[in-house]
Amino acid sequence: MRVAAQGTSLANPSRAEPSIQYVPVAMTGQQSLMAFHRHLLDDTVRTETFIRAIEAVVKPGDVVVDLGTGSGILAMACCRAGARRVYAIEANEIIRATKRVVEANGMGDTVVFIHKESSRVTLPEPVDLIVSECLGLMGPGDMMMSVVELARRSLREGGRILPERVELFIAPVESSLHSDYVNSWNRGRPYGFDMSIYQEIASNNVYVAWFDPESFLAPQQRIASLRLLDDDVSKVEKQVGFRVERSGQLHGFCGWFEVELGGGVRLNSSPSDPATIWKQVFLPLEQPVHVEAGTEVRLDFGLVTTGVIPNMPGYFRWETALIPPGAAAPSHVFKQSSLKSIPRAR
Amino acid sequence: MRVAAQGTSLANPSRAEPSIQYVPVAMTGQQSLMAFHRHLLDDTVRTETFIRAIEAVVKPGDVVVDLGTGSGILAMACCRAGARRVYAIEANEIIRATKRVVEANGMGDTVVFIHKESSRVTLPEPVDLIVSECLGLMGPGDMMMSVVELARRSLREGGRILPERVELFIAPVESSLHSDYVNSWNRGRPYGFDMSIYQEIASNNVYVAWFDPESFLAPQQRIASLRLLDDDVSKVEKQVGFRVERSGQLHGFCGWFEVELGGGVRLNSSPSDPATIWKQVFLPLEQPVHVEAGTEVRLDFGLVTTGVIPNMPGYFRWETALIPPGAAAPSHVFKQSSLKSIPRAR
Repeated sequence: MRVAAQGTSLANPSRAEPSIQYVPVAMTGQQSLMAFHRHLLDDTVRTETFIRAIEAVVKPGDVVVDLGTGSGILAMACCRAGARRVYAIEANEIIRATKRVVEANGMGDTVVFIHKESSRVTLPEPVDLIVSECLGLMGPGDMMMSVVELARRSLREGGRILPERVELFIAPVESSLHSDYVNSWNRGRPYGFDMSIYQEIASNNVYVAWFDPESFLAPQQRIASLRLLDDDVSKVEKQVGFRVERSGQLHGFCGWFEVELGGGVRLNSSPSDPATIWKQVFLPLEQPVHVEAGTEVRLDFGLVTTGVIPNMPGYFRWETALIPPGAAAPSHVFKQSSLKSIPRAR
Repeated sequence: MRVAAQGTSLANPSRAEPSIQYVPVAMTGQQSLMAFHRHLLDDTVRTETFIRAIEAVVKPGDVVVDLGTGSGILAMACCRAGARRVYAIEANEIIRATKRVVEANGMGDTVVFIHKESSRVTLPEPVDLIVSECLGLMGPGDMMMSVVELARRSLREGGRILPERVELFIAPVESSLHSDYVNSWNRGRPYGFDMSIYQEIASNNVYVAWFDPESFLAPQQRIASLRLLDDDVSKVEKQVGFRVERSGQLHGFCGWFEVELGGGVRLNSSPSDPATIWKQVFLPLEQPVHVEAGTEVRLDFGLVTTGVIPNMPGYFRWETALIPPGAAAPSHVFKQSSLKSIPRAR
């Protein structure tokens, strides 16, 4: 394991953390502007890969939509690649600064800014291409649904969408660092109090984390492969089985995505690829279980990207059954869901 | 300088970052619950210092308010210290889980939960003590105003407030790591584009960052000392002068607080004290300036903690004049304010 620990239990802040960061929205109201977009722009793998795909896909004279233009970086890349018109849609107030940036780059006549939610936008002409960095934690997310919805309304016949396809991957992992962080609430008494009530909430949450492929207890499986224009990206439902290759502690699952942007350009958030802002996703097991080589890990995985309850765009569901070598029935069954991480009165 | 850099320019995410974190609210809606309160509880300096102050201040039989009880940690500390009644006020839905935690600790009969904004709360009896971890970036913040407002309405004569007093400190600093991060927008062309428009926004923001006292170009000055029960904590206005002790690049100012909680217990977020979640605040200079030893740095500092514009609870203002040794007039004047970091159309 190369990953660094944030602390397995209740641990103090460390000066080894990154030295400087934008302050949260609570103090200056600018989180949505500079903190978030600086975070995105600082990821050169993400941004350069998207620009490379745009350069491969945009044809001179194209009419393009950039959905969620943010700092305008992809809209400007489309202009530079020869787009005749770019409709840059952005609901956030950053659009006012982005407009000035685009003008400073001499692209003010090509880019048309639309300060609205995309669902409320009607474009004046059919478009050749919709571009959007619409990737959620493990690929699909509510933003991706907005892209698909706009494509149905505005894309001309034969028009394209960037990204084109998203694939999801999962592997069972041994990672005591990650597990100890999640499972700290019912160990000991933090500050002398019983905080075990929080454990159910913590176990049913998903986390972003760095993983090393060496933490895998079995090879990864592809959970889904979705073409944005043809398939339903609002949810993923998949049952999959893993055969444990080495004995160890099963602490949960590592999830990530691989996306085909267009023109043969791919972006991958796997532990083996260069680091991106997405890191990987950790789906903790309700409690660590020792598994022998040969154990079958049956995973019933669900990801819903559209809102089912207010202020909660979607949820993860992961139900696990462990069948030891030679056994007929599971030794352990865990049914976990991020819906269970909502605090309840009892 | 011991601090680690997040990257001076547009830099890629690093696997050296903390390995695991709760996912943002956008995905599961639980940011306000577990991510934020885990972050607070993980700061053992903060939490243990508050608990130590509570143990020094709470007298058996006291009626206490815990304003913004969150995970309930301070409310439980008040119970353990002998409080007869604790009114735990919390507007966030975490209160539903916290109630179960408090019951699990056998304190369900002592703690009365109130699921409201404190401004809408009328207590059934006068209280002896109001406890609140109400500290903002540099001490005062909009939460502190809520505490003071509740104290005026609900504290019995002779009643107390915890924290009792907050002091603000500032020092001029040399820190090219911090300055390079802030001043990256008009250097080079990120991804081949002119992004200099963002520089004005970035220069007028404040940042949280780690500092080393060795980065100071002059000794710190105390900007304010405010007793919460007697003084106006809604704003700080102060003009102060520093005399540069060693030549170097002036990159901005480092700010922090020291707070007197009660019973002689103090908490300090200075670069010389143990790390806390607050780190320090970086107020960047609009551009770095070389200063000779003996240069006078005149700072006109303002901090407003209550909202003047929507979604923006307060703002920082820092106006700097640099007067070289022997000169009669300033060589440089910079007038900066976080109000200028709001994106404008032109």
